[in-house]
Amino acid sequence: MSYVIGLDFGSLSCRGVLADVCNGHIAASAEAAYPNEILTEQLPDGTPLCANWCLQHPEDYLSVLDVILPKLCGKNEISPQEIVGLGVDFTASTVIPLDANFHPMCFTYPSRPHAWPKLWKHHGAQAQADKLTLLCKELEPDYLTRYGGKVSCEALIPKVLQVYEEDPALFRETHCFVEAMDYVTSLLCGKKVFSSSAAAAKAMFRSETGYPGEEFFTAISPDLKNLPKEKLMARFDDYTIASPGQKVGELCSEMAERFGLPEGIAISAPQMDAYAAMPGIGIAKPGVMMMVIGTSTGIMLLSEERKNVEGVTACLPDTYYPGFWGYASGQASVGDTFGWFVDRCVPENYIQAARSRGMNLHQYLSDLSASLQPGESGLLALDWLGGNRSCLVNPNLSGMILGLTLQTKPEEIYRSLLEATAFGARIITEAYRNAGAAVEEIWVCGGIANKNPLMMQIYADVLNLPLHVSSCTQAPALGAAVYAAAAAGIGDIVEMAEIMGDRLCTVYEPNPAHRDIYDRLFAEYQKLHDYFGKGENSVMERLKSIAGKAKNPDMKI
Amino acid sequence: MSYVIGLDFGSLSCRGVLADVCNGHIAASAEAAYPNEILTEQLPDGTPLCANWCLQHPEDYLSVLDVILPKLCGKNEISPQEIVGLGVDFTASTVIPLDANFHPMCFTYPSRPHAWPKLWKHHGAQAQADKLTLLCKELEPDYLTRYGGKVSCEALIPKVLQVYEEDPALFRETHCFVEAMDYVTSLLCGKKVFSSSAAAAKAMFRSETGYPGEEFFTAISPDLKNLPKEKLMARFDDYTIASPGQKVGELCSEMAERFGLPEGIAISAPQMDAYAAMPGIGIAKPGVMMMVIGTSTGIMLLSEERKNVEGVTACLPDTYYPGFWGYASGQASVGDTFGWFVDRCVPENYIQAARSRGMNLHQYLSDLSASLQPGESGLLALDWLGGNRSCLVNPNLSGMILGLTLQTKPEEIYRSLLEATAFGARIITEAYRNAGAAVEEIWVCGGIANKNPLMMQIYADVLNLPLHVSSCTQAPALGAAVYAAAAAGIGDIVEMAEIMGDRLCTVYEPNPAHRDIYDRLFAEYQKLHDYFGKGENSVMERLKSIAGKAKNPDMKI
Repeated sequence: MSYVIGLDFGSLSCRGVLADVCNGHIAASAEAAYPNEILTEQLPDGTPLCANWCLQHPEDYLSVLDVILPKLCGKNEISPQEIVGLGVDFTASTVIPLDANFHPMCFTYPSRPHAWPKLWKHHGAQAQADKLTLLCKELEPDYLTRYGGKVSCEALIPKVLQVYEEDPALFRETHCFVEAMDYVTSLLCGKKVFSSSAAAAKAMFRSETGYPGEEFFTAISPDLKNLPKEKLMARFDDYTIASPGQKVGELCSEMAERFGLPEGIAISAPQMDAYAAMPGIGIAKPGVMMMVIGTSTGIMLLSEERKNVEGVTACLPDTYYPGFWGYASGQASVGDTFGWFVDRCVPENYIQAARSRGMNLHQYLSDLSASLQPGESGLLALDWLGGNRSCLVNPNLSGMILGLTLQTKPEEIYRSLLEATAFGARIITEAYRNAGAAVEEIWVCGGIANKNPLMMQIYADVLNLPLHVSSCTQAPALGAAVYAAAAAGIGDIVEMAEIMGDRLCTVYEPNPAHRDIYDRLFAEYQKLHDYFGKGENSVMERLKSIAGKAKNPDMKI
Repeated sequence: MSYVIGLDFGSLSCRGVLADVCNGHIAASAEAAYPNEILTEQLPDGTPLCANWCLQHPEDYLSVLDVILPKLCGKNEISPQEIVGLGVDFTASTVIPLDANFHPMCFTYPSRPHAWPKLWKHHGAQAQADKLTLLCKELEPDYLTRYGGKVSCEALIPKVLQVYEEDPALFRETHCFVEAMDYVTSLLCGKKVFSSSAAAAKAMFRSETGYPGEEFFTAISPDLKNLPKEKLMARFDDYTIASPGQKVGELCSEMAERFGLPEGIAISAPQMDAYAAMPGIGIAKPGVMMMVIGTSTGIMLLSEERKNVEGVTACLPDTYYPGFWGYASGQASVGDTFGWFVDRCVPENYIQAARSRGMNLHQYLSDLSASLQPGESGLLALDWLGGNRSCLVNPNLSGMILGLTLQTKPEEIYRSLLEATAFGARIITEAYRNAGAAVEEIWVCGGIANKNPLMMQIYADVLNLPLHVSSCTQAPALGAAVYAAAAAGIGDIVEMAEIMGDRLCTVYEPNPAHRDIYDRLFAEYQKLHDYFGKGENSVMERLKSIAGKAKNPDMKI
């Protein structure tokens, strides 16, 4: 028997699976939360951070493997020798500044905010992203069409430029900026390795032509003329580049010993986390849309054609599998929003009532709100608490709740937030349809999908399509394992996705009685979406700008 | 020595004071909550109510006097014989349907929603108010100019028409519909008495010409041709009408015995509660604006001239004092909104932290939010959780919070709600100024004014005027006592207001450092105010209509 390991590095924790290459059966799984909290307000030493910042501690990545890997290997009488490959998926673009020894710069400069890894949802580089968008329009128009017309501030290049502009000394001293997935995979391989997938999606890299040329970077600043060769992975002469499902290296002896795994097993090029769910649930044909609903939502579509879809995060060849165009759109905050509400807006008597029923607050609020009719609360929300990734591509938008009365109850607000994310998903699916990209089937996976049947029913009703909710709770980790199996040479990646992907699902049919009312509510959502999101009233952006100045009147970074 | 009693009947409780007629000194005060809760969702027997309904239990009014009056009379060695008068102020328009024996109809028909007293904030009669507005434009244009161009659904006539349309059998059987203030004062006097003040403000009554004529009511329905004579206080042949400060009757023997007061003491015609605060804090000259901030806010201005101010609730002669024009505007929910937030949106850890500091949640949240800079939260709210009384006169508007992020904290939302009510107050003061009515001085009183210095500073900053915050916590009750003193013949009402009114205050000066930022935030507020409130996007009204239907698909009343 042969097994592969898939490791899914999320925003708050890492999940690992040990999967059978013959059928994808998960023989063991384990999870570990990162020991350190995400940094949004201050560094560990108390140095304050600006609004919109979001940093991660680089020690976390290997720490969780010390917990997870022994658990995966110590179960079910599977000998470590049966493990033939390992794959990683990761949040992106999570960017780490490294020194020449491949050590994170924050180990040397713990008080310098820019020395720390910037998590994907760090939104401090908007000005740099805006500058890049303008420049791309002039010099790299094809790049923009692959990215929905805007460079996202969550991408790698804007984050690198933010360091250049705000802490030039640290920028100069940094040897290179790498995706966290490449950092971790390189440590596992004991050599410099590099995934083409995230580079293409987040760093303007094309497999055919590489990074943009000197003209492009010179236009930003003459200092940056050779940015790729001087500050990105291309700095290393000896790096290996591969796409997910290709073998990028082998587990080095040091890591093999540390984690009790066989030395030399195949390691796949890493994949972006939401993307990895695609092989994880066995999607391997065009026209199938996948929504990965977690703290944020990734919406992916396989297609044989390239279309210009509004506000896609990426439309790239060969990202999931060779030979397909892969589209990705996203909603910046979904589970995060419900978590925010549950943590900060639910009163004591609800908490006690949930406790006395042995439920968590999400279950309790979902139960209460399930008895509400659509529209009954009179509430309508805009789900932009983390900004809007698609189709508006604007992290400076913010959340809104409208229709509040003195009778408004917590479960009503909770439901309005669920509905708002469904409306946001509908805006995205309609953008695909409007661009001529067929959406024939929708699959949903991710942490929340199986925990909240009410939410899934609302999505089916709002999208007015049957919703295939994957029963696989480890889709990205299993997908990483599928990539590992391909990298280990068990079969080609599409074939392995079909063999190992977990197709078990629950289908939610849209409730015809809810169709009209949700069409009306969606029309109201769309009107507010356009009013606040398309420039008619940019109050959200102005308020964020006022807030930024009020919070840090003198702070530059 | 001579003393007078002032009784202030609010939405949730009644407060009473015993005041010295020589100087207004409060010798004793007492408060009692109504034993019954306000009815918004169902009747005591479980009969469900529609959205926007708000009923009160008529037993409450005398019940609280059984608690309060003995406390007032049993203190400070003042003999009951020294008490020379009693005055009442009351929420308005709170409308009670009565039978021929002056008994509330709900005692006979406890399962009929329309048999119960409708509290001022019952918003179920909007359709009737809209109909009356149209009719007034045609037949009684002068009436409308006195009421800011719209008939409010909180007024008496719309509430009476709602009964006529929705429960015609009960309407027929009802002997008359009276203001609760007239009901209680009549019980105290043992005869039918009637205040011209609320009738003028809420029921289209003019001291010169009485109610509108047959033509007006026939235009609504031929059935209603003689509405005033058949269904309002005019039905009784022997009623006494007077204005506040005039004696309307004397305490009858039954009530004197029940409450331990001297029989025959003078009783003043009752006044609307917020209006009564004016003599209570000794305002007796034109150009002074008074804000009474409680669950809702009443904004009043004394003037020598009549101007057409947008969205005033009333602009009437002689309402406060003879010879003055009295303007009133209002904000439908202020303290109610903060109460809603504290009750329904504050998480457990905040509640525990407040408890451990021995603070209530309002204090705790105010303390936390006092350390925020204006604009720092990035939040902006519309304070219409109870609808908008001035200047938009639309109870179907609703609350909105914009600028939410995953970092938004409860104290930030709390502060944004405080600020929103300040912006709402600024909209109103600007409407006065735009109409040419001078606002030279602002006085604030009411339950919240002395409890929340942060709120008062925000109001001073947003309004950009010094704010005189009255130290008198019992302004309406003291005002009712001033009216009682005038009714007892101690002096004329303006003179008594100057003698007895409590002028002690704290002055909050606007912080010049906050002026620009609040001007910017107010500009954003005004833009959203106009967008949602002036017809550009009537989403709030549409959502309320959808919600009403979703909640009660088959219900007529």
